[in-house]
Amino acid sequence: MTAVADSPLPTPQQDDLREQVLAAARRARTASAELVLATRQRKDATLNAMAQALLARTAEILAANARDVAAGRDAGMTEALLDRLTLTPARISGIADGLRTVAGLPDPIGEVLRGGLQPNGLEIRQVRVPMGVLGMVYEGRPNVTVDAAGLALKSGNAVLLRGSSSAEQSNTALVAILRDSLDATGLPVDAVQLLPCHDRASVRHLITARGLVDLVIPRGGAGLIAAVVEQATVPTVETGTGNCHVYVDASADLDRAEAIVVNSKARRPSVCNAAETLLVHASLAERFLPRVLSVLAEHGVTVHGDGITQTVGGPDVVPATDADWDTEYLSLDLAVKVVYSLNEAIAHIAEHSSGHTEAIVTENVSAARQFTARVDAAAVMVNASTAFTDGAEFGMGAEIGISTQKLHARGPMGLAELTSSKWQVWGDGQIRSAS
Amino acid sequence: MTAVADSPLPTPQQDDLREQVLAAARRARTASAELVLATRQRKDATLNAMAQALLARTAEILAANARDVAAGRDAGMTEALLDRLTLTPARISGIADGLRTVAGLPDPIGEVLRGGLQPNGLEIRQVRVPMGVLGMVYEGRPNVTVDAAGLALKSGNAVLLRGSSSAEQSNTALVAILRDSLDATGLPVDAVQLLPCHDRASVRHLITARGLVDLVIPRGGAGLIAAVVEQATVPTVETGTGNCHVYVDASADLDRAEAIVVNSKARRPSVCNAAETLLVHASLAERFLPRVLSVLAEHGVTVHGDGITQTVGGPDVVPATDADWDTEYLSLDLAVKVVYSLNEAIAHIAEHSSGHTEAIVTENVSAARQFTARVDAAAVMVNASTAFTDGAEFGMGAEIGISTQKLHARGPMGLAELTSSKWQVWGDGQIRSAS
Repeated sequence: MTAVADSPLPTPQQDDLREQVLAAARRARTASAELVLATRQRKDATLNAMAQALLARTAEILAANARDVAAGRDAGMTEALLDRLTLTPARISGIADGLRTVAGLPDPIGEVLRGGLQPNGLEIRQVRVPMGVLGMVYEGRPNVTVDAAGLALKSGNAVLLRGSSSAEQSNTALVAILRDSLDATGLPVDAVQLLPCHDRASVRHLITARGLVDLVIPRGGAGLIAAVVEQATVPTVETGTGNCHVYVDASADLDRAEAIVVNSKARRPSVCNAAETLLVHASLAERFLPRVLSVLAEHGVTVHGDGITQTVGGPDVVPATDADWDTEYLSLDLAVKVVYSLNEAIAHIAEHSSGHTEAIVTENVSAARQFTARVDAAAVMVNASTAFTDGAEFGMGAEIGISTQKLHARGPMGLAELTSSKWQVWGDGQIRSAS
Repeated sequence: MTAVADSPLPTPQQDDLREQVLAAARRARTASAELVLATRQRKDATLNAMAQALLARTAEILAANARDVAAGRDAGMTEALLDRLTLTPARISGIADGLRTVAGLPDPIGEVLRGGLQPNGLEIRQVRVPMGVLGMVYEGRPNVTVDAAGLALKSGNAVLLRGSSSAEQSNTALVAILRDSLDATGLPVDAVQLLPCHDRASVRHLITARGLVDLVIPRGGAGLIAAVVEQATVPTVETGTGNCHVYVDASADLDRAEAIVVNSKARRPSVCNAAETLLVHASLAERFLPRVLSVLAEHGVTVHGDGITQTVGGPDVVPATDADWDTEYLSLDLAVKVVYSLNEAIAHIAEHSSGHTEAIVTENVSAARQFTARVDAAAVMVNASTAFTDGAEFGMGAEIGISTQKLHARGPMGLAELTSSKWQVWGDGQIRSAS
């Protein structure tokens, strides 16, 4: 899906759907009041029970998934999308391992963020608390269903899952198993709920349920994210749009530069931390461009180059248009431009970056410090691949997405990023003076 | 103002206004790129220069303010609103002191929030950075103009100020002085800009300037805040709606309870941390209600009570209706209800609280722990007045408002709450493995 349909006159059916979504949200809120009190022991026991149940009921999941895949094939879904949709015993085992990893992470809830005694004797602490009710809007990857439920549970949140209709059977089977595990360990089953997925209006009802839903995280293509963020009245976190740059500075070590450019582009071109544009300092154009273009070609990368790059690279280089500088290819394509200064590189990035990950390759301390201070992005790399922007690589253990906004969370979102805080003030009858 | 007018067909004049707001936002963004690099020394020097200039040019400010006050009086503005609008030499001196206080606070920018070495040798740090461009939408208090500009500058942000038309002359004079000080100390003058205030459409243009404005903070009445939050596509932080409760538990020390109830209600009834509802455990009704109602009456408080409260308090008690439990009076009115358990008190608060500040008065540890764990609010007090929810009281030195939302910031918003973060990753040519 790429847009949330808007219909000015709701039909009775849509009113029903709205009530269905709001009723689920109210049940989630009731569940969240119990989750606030759940100890780490109980949450971890539930996560481990979920992992065990997924393995024990693999046949059931695979049967449901096979129906989704067959329907997708009949509907002409591409092989790439079918691959994302498909579950195998190995993938289910990986999903279960993910839950066990989350169980092993420290509990974010209750952490004291700040605190101390005030002059009047009041004891003040800011402590981490669950957000409450999370909404997830995502596409046809059934693993997101379990990953999101696991992270939500560990951080003490109830979650409303609005997956793709293409994964409906798989998601239904998975959520049934997760809910059985909640029930078995004495946590409220409505902590994990699957929303109706056939009508885009259910997304709209979810993202406008102010007061019932505390945070909505859209995870998927740029169109989905933009539609959710623009129409939501519930707070949202934008995730995952990455028009990432690698800038090779005049003083770069060229072996490092080559390795970083190739890894940033070609390791997994379909993910948001992949590089989409290479900026090369003019003083290196003759020495560096031929070798990097040659290695990129070996990796099957199509280069969209500016004038100098075309001159150096010859007819294999596709002439870049203005649109290339703003394109997140998510494929084996790379825009390449020669710049004449660090300032020009920083200005180009400021104009075209989506604020995800930006990298400089340099041996010059001042250039590195200028770049990290002035480039406005969730992650700024010095002499490292853009591919490192990732929750696991940053030591968070797991992530629910990568935020490209500045409010609340920026960069990989782990457990801490799914929490809020609360001030607790303990006194002995203190009152405040009039002034 | 209580609503942001919506006009489906923009007139040419409105298009001009939109372009005016967006041009200001673009200038602010350019200024913010310079502010990112401003050292604490320079920011503090500017804040002190601003304070000095406000004092030196007091006559100019008072003359402008007198025109606003005269126009307000002619337009039939209430005495309370005129009082908020009026500046005096003492108030200007207080505003200047506020800037000096902010200059004395530690710089939030550059603080390392998390960091360490990864197994592959990457050095990872999450550092505090400015948000970028802030938008403030507020009512007829000219002091907010200077307070917001000072906090924005110290936290490295450019700010777009959209004040009330009733304070236009005062705000224009104040902003001219602030900009002169920026100029004098070598910081970009467009770090502080006043937006047109005569047309409500300028608010709409500000709160929909996605990509140019990073955060909008509405400060004022509930209607203003709701209109901004619902129509904004730029991230917002809700501030300041406080339907606060004091619950007097069965085990309360009644002297403390009385002092806390009276201070929470009557200290400054017009502010958001004032209590609006008193909940009293039934076992105390006969002992506590008569004495607290009597003291509240001495303070001029009108009680809106349930059946038992009416019986105890006699004809002076106004019978409470369902609406009373949801009303933020902001006046010397207090709803009073008798509850039969801690659970009933917590359930009542869950249903009616605006999530600002909730207090329990109790000598029982378990009751205090239950209350602080289960009540979902920005601040939860044990044996202390609700009046303590305040940036200065929490040791932040200054605040721009009190957030009642869970995303990003919750409770008093000081300098740290006006910042974002950025991950800086330094390496030696690391690339990520394929798996």
